Amino acid sequence: MLIWQRVCYLHESREWQPELNPKLFTWTVRVYYEDTDSGGVVYYANYLKFMERARTEWLRAAGFDQSVLLNEHRVIFVVRSVAIEYIKPAIFDDALAVTVHPTHIGRSQIVFQQTVERGDVLTKAEVKIVCVNGDTFKPVKIPETIRQKLGNEN
Amino acid sequence: MLIWQRVCYLHESREWQPELNPKLFTWTVRVYYEDTDSGGVVYYANYLKFMERARTEWLRAAGFDQSVLLNEHRVIFVVRSVAIEYIKPAIFDDALAVTVHPTHIGRSQIVFQQTVERGDVLTKAEVKIVCVNGDTFKPVKIPETIRQKLGNEN
Amino acid sequence: MLIWQRVCYLHESREWQPELNPKLFTWTVRVYYEDTDSGGVVYYANYLKFMERARTEWLRAAGFDQSVLLNEHRVIFVVRSVAIEYIKPAIFDDALAVTVHPTHIGRSQIVFQQTVERGDVLTKAEVKIVCVNGDTFKPVKIPETIRQKLGNEN
Amino acid sequence: MLIWQRVCYLHESREWQPELNPKLFTWTVRVYYEDTDSGGVVYYANYLKFMERARTEWLRAAGFDQSVLLNEHRVIFVVRSVAIEYIKPAIFDDALAVTVHPTHIGRSQIVFQQTVERGDVLTKAEVKIVCVNGDTFKPVKIPETIRQKLGNEN
Repeated sequence: MLIWQRVCYLHESREWQPELNPKLFTWTVRVYYEDTDSGGVVYYANYLKFMERARTEWLRAAGFDQSVLLNEHRVIFVVRSVAIEYIKPAIFDDALAVTVHPTHIGRSQIVFQQTVERGDVLTKAEVKIVCVNGDTFKPVKIPETIRQKLGNEN
Repeated sequence: MLIWQRVCYLHESREWQPELNPKLFTWTVRVYYEDTDSGGVVYYANYLKFMERARTEWLRAAGFDQSVLLNEHRVIFVVRSVAIEYIKPAIFDDALAVTVHPTHIGRSQIVFQQTVERGDVLTKAEVKIVCVNGDTFKPVKIPETIRQKLGNEN
Repeated sequence: MLIWQRVCYLHESREWQPELNPKLFTWTVRVYYEDTDSGGVVYYANYLKFMERARTEWLRAAGFDQSVLLNEHRVIFVVRSVAIEYIKPAIFDDALAVTVHPTHIGRSQIVFQQTVERGDVLTKAEVKIVCVNGDTFKPVKIPETIRQKLGNEN
Repeated sequence: MLIWQRVCYLHESREWQPELNPKLFTWTVRVYYEDTDSGGVVYYANYLKFMERARTEWLRAAGFDQSVLLNEHRVIFVVRSVAIEYIKPAIFDDALAVTVHPTHIGRSQIVFQQTVERGDVLTKAEVKIVCVNGDTFKPVKIPETIRQKLGNEN
């Protein structure tokens, strides 16, 4: 609950300076019926949706809209691989904290550690993203402005 | 943007009194890749997800969690019918305002007018919900506490 | 592999003559966990997915691939409105019969009656589709080859 | 209808002997608009849906319905982990071959290698499934009838 207030506040005010600590970010996701299955829990593929929402908001909080990135820089980010572990299930009505922690920012690739939490960690994943040209889909260098903002640590 | 701030504030503080104006409610939904299709727009079935999210948050703002309703009152709300018109498409990254306007609260049925807006109205729908027993799935009377809170107008 | 080839064969061989009776078409959809919600039934928005799958296969059975229509004729079909009634729920593992019955083929619009059945009718809908230019999204005349194949009944 | 009956027949008739070669199974999945995103390709989470459909049909082909397993044996299969690599994208209208290859069947766990192919391999994954009690969600021994059918190789 606290997390949610924070996220709303920070986003709207833009007082938050993502560049001061580009490695910590949490986005809250509410679980609706659409996310669950008849096993009574969140459907296993839907955690990947939650994690992408959090990555999108992490990028937005750092000052980058993906639509702008495509139009101005002709780049998009695509997922290269996901390794996800399901530890405990989330259920209807949960307010989940989805974390985004970039552990490596390379020339054209970013590696994230992500978790979905409800107090405890419910799922955790390593997600590899590649920056590609929006026309050719070939890997390209991550634009320098993004690298600088996110933490240029090769 | 304003709407979103309001919603966050109101939700967390619970200062908002839905019973004073039970007929106006807006929930903001961000469009992610998961919501779009290769036509470049939001997939037509997904507006029904957005509208349900807004109805769920409308009920929560009025003080009712659906999980509590099921456990305490043994009732759930199910959709009986939807009539939806698609006017203009929403696209990736849009922040959509989803409105909830209950136009009729009957014995066991609630009728909603809902819109999805981005300045203009993109889609509008009439959604009929029925309150049913959680075990038998037979229509039952909407619990009196809910009717009073939502506006008891038969 | 064999199984699928069989399906392809039946389709591709055109032994079935859709033009002889363009108004009757059934496509079977299996319900998987992804389609259900924690209420134990198929999530209400997902019937719209099932109905679109059936319309796509109906068009394919008539000899038209949507990707070809876009590339050759520069047209796509978009949904203008849906009026759907939910009568009984479908559940996990059901093999559902989804029917496609075009009741009106106009200049740029097709009206379908569709049902989802498991013996009984579970849901029924009227779906209006409009043929639009793939670039401008303005309504255009349905290509004559399609109208002739589907039954040119204005 | 005919088409589907054909598919059912082939499955039901058990002319195919899954026990003779329990390790090879392919299920074909058609890509519809619902599966794609505005990047023009299949949304990355949806490959997990395709892979689960194939595992479900693999189990059905071996003679086991998951609803029966729950009712008779009180067991369900849940996903413990997925490691998936995205190599090339699938697009609208593709007919994808989804393979199911169990590489290890342990006491309560099955490990699958799965691919999604369109000629070439588009994605490949290792998926770990655990058999749990349907009430307590604790891991339990895979029922002996299933182990025998699937290849009892510890």
